[in-house]
Amino acid sequence: MNTQNGLDMSRAPHLTIDLNTCGVSTGDLIVPGGRDYGELSLPIFSLNKGEGHRVLITGGNHGNELEGPLVSRRLIEWLPEVQTCGRIIVLPVLNPLAVEAWSRNTPLDGLNLNRSFPGRADGSVTQRIADAVSRVLLPTADVVFDLHSFGPTWELPPAATTHPIADPHLMAKTVRMAEAFKLPVTLVWQHNDTAGMFDTVAQNQGKVFVCAEFGGGTVGAGNLAIYEAGVRNALIALGLVEGQAEYPTFRQQKSGQTLETRPSDQLKSPAPGIFEPRCSVLDEVKQGDLIGILHPMGSLSTDSLDILAPTPSIVLALASGAHVNANEAVAYVARPLKI
Amino acid sequence: MNTQNGLDMSRAPHLTIDLNTCGVSTGDLIVPGGRDYGELSLPIFSLNKGEGHRVLITGGNHGNELEGPLVSRRLIEWLPEVQTCGRIIVLPVLNPLAVEAWSRNTPLDGLNLNRSFPGRADGSVTQRIADAVSRVLLPTADVVFDLHSFGPTWELPPAATTHPIADPHLMAKTVRMAEAFKLPVTLVWQHNDTAGMFDTVAQNQGKVFVCAEFGGGTVGAGNLAIYEAGVRNALIALGLVEGQAEYPTFRQQKSGQTLETRPSDQLKSPAPGIFEPRCSVLDEVKQGDLIGILHPMGSLSTDSLDILAPTPSIVLALASGAHVNANEAVAYVARPLKI
Repeated sequence: MNTQNGLDMSRAPHLTIDLNTCGVSTGDLIVPGGRDYGELSLPIFSLNKGEGHRVLITGGNHGNELEGPLVSRRLIEWLPEVQTCGRIIVLPVLNPLAVEAWSRNTPLDGLNLNRSFPGRADGSVTQRIADAVSRVLLPTADVVFDLHSFGPTWELPPAATTHPIADPHLMAKTVRMAEAFKLPVTLVWQHNDTAGMFDTVAQNQGKVFVCAEFGGGTVGAGNLAIYEAGVRNALIALGLVEGQAEYPTFRQQKSGQTLETRPSDQLKSPAPGIFEPRCSVLDEVKQGDLIGILHPMGSLSTDSLDILAPTPSIVLALASGAHVNANEAVAYVARPLKI
Repeated sequence: MNTQNGLDMSRAPHLTIDLNTCGVSTGDLIVPGGRDYGELSLPIFSLNKGEGHRVLITGGNHGNELEGPLVSRRLIEWLPEVQTCGRIIVLPVLNPLAVEAWSRNTPLDGLNLNRSFPGRADGSVTQRIADAVSRVLLPTADVVFDLHSFGPTWELPPAATTHPIADPHLMAKTVRMAEAFKLPVTLVWQHNDTAGMFDTVAQNQGKVFVCAEFGGGTVGAGNLAIYEAGVRNALIALGLVEGQAEYPTFRQQKSGQTLETRPSDQLKSPAPGIFEPRCSVLDEVKQGDLIGILHPMGSLSTDSLDILAPTPSIVLALASGAHVNANEAVAYVARPLKI
């Protein structure tokens, strides 16, 4: 046996269930231990109804975004009654160490799981989780939904998101899949920090990958219902679940729009301070409209600074409730996607 | 000069402004340096209009509760136009180290400022802030408003709160002052963790002390307007500010109620997991009604656990969006205050 520090390093990540079994199976994805932490058992659910799409649904990628784990638990409750074909695997908590700490990154190694893909079998605990997911789960699916939120200090309308994908055919398929969530926003998010994302690894293998996002502080019953409806709509569109897809009610409206945002649409703080939003997400703004005010806190004689809309646009996301450093994002604007 | 580690340990905390000056003064509360950190300058505003109440308004006691600093900045903008008498001192950020880290406690020494009063001149940085506030600012005021929120993982309606006070005369005065905020909830909060609170030190000196709370995740424009209206109402009631006090609109209503909550009204998690609220704050519940569900995350075959209302009561606060340990609070209920 190849051992190091008393741990068996030769064990490969694996599942305790056979995904080919018909019906419901529950067990664990086993992430082998390493020098920094012992073996992890990530609870997993699979419902195999034969022919049809192979879907993987994950939550708890970031530890302070808990809508995903809660919606995953709800799926596990109702899928057995409504799934008619295909196979759906649900893994509610990808990173239990981060969830237990209510921390975006894993406290033990400081790594962001969603920048650690495809992972390393001989790496730190976060890298080993990414490796287990990449090698054991990703090959089983042709469609992946990773259920995020936008983190506790951001407001963002419920959104199904993707990043630009080089392959135009996969890009079109992915946008259609995201739109099938029927959330208030479908978003194509172009940013420069995509290395190591779960999305990128899945898309490089030709899979349809949609990341659900939902910002706004505490997890309330209303938010959860919208999030859950979005996932149900997507499963209905895939033909795996019976039912009628419809837009969930958000701010007394039942509608959705497809937007894009680019790096230049990120509004940054001109100085350290506390950002006070002065508009709402989904507001349409003209160039020069007030988005918010940055209040430097070091001196009361320093004037507060207006943050203005750089172009006619739609307010996509607002930072709030946290101190920001100079040059840190305080808002994102967006515009209708042109294909 | 009495020096230690190159720092002048003999300097006492002091203000850079003379509070007896008429009109507006801005400067700093100087917190002397110590072994762990250098001198701090906490920006401060004073508006002296002669006879009348002496009020101290503070924010940023906890670093992840930023409504207080933002409302403080707004006060500084409009007080010069509406204050007619008395003296109002505003200190927007009591603990800049915690605010910059968006952390409840001070990262450097791990201390909760609101459990560190009256502080220590020769203590760690948090204790030195408490000492400076206790010795320099507290003696200048007969009324203190400390502007908190309930933290990022709790939902709580806007509330003006106090704790039970042994002196019945001061208790009655304090409840009347809290009710003058005209927030949706006036709360008498009985709990067992009051040692070292700013409240306790101020009340022991016979001062009226009200703590404003407002939970619910991100800081939005609507929340801030309610919070700001509450402080304005209180200053109008004290006779310092011109205007008409009125209940701010919260959930389409303009009303307030006075509640009390006791240690036995805290509902605790029976196991580690993620708490999903299944009711809303201010809901009236009967004994046995569902408050929320605790989802253990370690196994999918472990049933989720219902958290039920122990008595007929009003839902005061709901934890959400965070993992909780066993025996950690997930909700508070309350009932109308009987005097």
